Amino acid sequence: MTAPVSKISDKVPEPTLRRLPWYLSCAKLMKNQGETNVSSTQISRQINIDASQVAKDLSYVAVSGRTRVGYDIDCLISVLEDFLGFTNMHKAFLFGVGSLGAALLQDTGLSHFGLEIVGAFDIDPDKVGTVISGIPVYHTEEFPKIMKQSDVNIGILTVPISIAQMITDYMVDGGIKAVWNFTPFRIRVPEDIVVQNTSLYAHLAVMFNRLNEELIRQ
Amino acid sequence: MTAPVSKISDKVPEPTLRRLPWYLSCAKLMKNQGETNVSSTQISRQINIDASQVAKDLSYVAVSGRTRVGYDIDCLISVLEDFLGFTNMHKAFLFGVGSLGAALLQDTGLSHFGLEIVGAFDIDPDKVGTVISGIPVYHTEEFPKIMKQSDVNIGILTVPISIAQMITDYMVDGGIKAVWNFTPFRIRVPEDIVVQNTSLYAHLAVMFNRLNEELIRQ
Repeated sequence: MTAPVSKISDKVPEPTLRRLPWYLSCAKLMKNQGETNVSSTQISRQINIDASQVAKDLSYVAVSGRTRVGYDIDCLISVLEDFLGFTNMHKAFLFGVGSLGAALLQDTGLSHFGLEIVGAFDIDPDKVGTVISGIPVYHTEEFPKIMKQSDVNIGILTVPISIAQMITDYMVDGGIKAVWNFTPFRIRVPEDIVVQNTSLYAHLAVMFNRLNEELIRQ
Repeated sequence: MTAPVSKISDKVPEPTLRRLPWYLSCAKLMKNQGETNVSSTQISRQINIDASQVAKDLSYVAVSGRTRVGYDIDCLISVLEDFLGFTNMHKAFLFGVGSLGAALLQDTGLSHFGLEIVGAFDIDPDKVGTVISGIPVYHTEEFPKIMKQSDVNIGILTVPISIAQMITDYMVDGGIKAVWNFTPFRIRVPEDIVVQNTSLYAHLAVMFNRLNEELIRQ
């Protein structure tokens, strides 16, 4: 027995959105371990986040736990997956089949989280016309034509920084609504275009810096 | 002519650390375009961040620009690369040669930013003993022995969530000092261990959510 579930249309704060996948993976893990119910206190203990924060974050997805019993674990998992967009398949094009781009084409894990890369673009004649993990690589020039025939909203940016802005403009002109930017370049877009920056190199810099501090302290 | 350069040992705020790679890529781009000097105002305009913020962030790396002339571009690039740890090679082991793990082994871009993956671990007999992009895959059981013979501080975590905590504990017991966590699981570590979370799936969730908001608005 669980309370009725519905999506809330209020804007969810980004920190909450970033924590929700933690609760999802925690719930999945507990389900694997045979649990049928899970409380915010249990989640809190497992992942070391304040229980009131967990309860508040979960209130955004409009799932209500019952005192002492907590959430029905299957219900919590399906509501979170749905809310986070992992159950709907979102189609994407990838731009720049270099080392990182090719690696992402081969990461089948993305499709389990709602992202299906349906085509890639590059200008290298050795790459154009090939198929990587079932995904065709087209010449970048073909993008406007192919875009018109497809229902793709997302562009993944894995090009060299020298052309990051140019390719972003090209994507947006073609009708892309969200850019997943893996380059360390800060791209500019019109106000209604979504940008998600995932710079592995910026994360590396933070990690190196913190590691050096720890090594100096020891 | 540039002012003397030295590293500051104060703790650099994480937002600053995350912005510095943007300035670096911006400076590299301007150098490619033939510039020899760059001011914080120019960087500010290029990447749409307040000029006083750029100047403040750059003051952490102790590089001082001259009024009207700005920074010597070669000097700024080399100081930033050095400060961010991209010029020193940091050795790492990777745990979990699944889809994402194998993709990272093939991303040669990481080595340009100071990360060299020198070995990978898995338990799958089809993977153990193979070599991916020049990186040997060992059985996970061999880690403590191999760790003792090497000068590796960083562990990259790309295992299923069900064993993320167990493998983290195993790494830390073996002497790993920093964990780059690509799983959507929130791992627990002792206080002196650095964790860098890079959950592609959490970033996807944020992007899907923002995209849906924009699509509803239109």
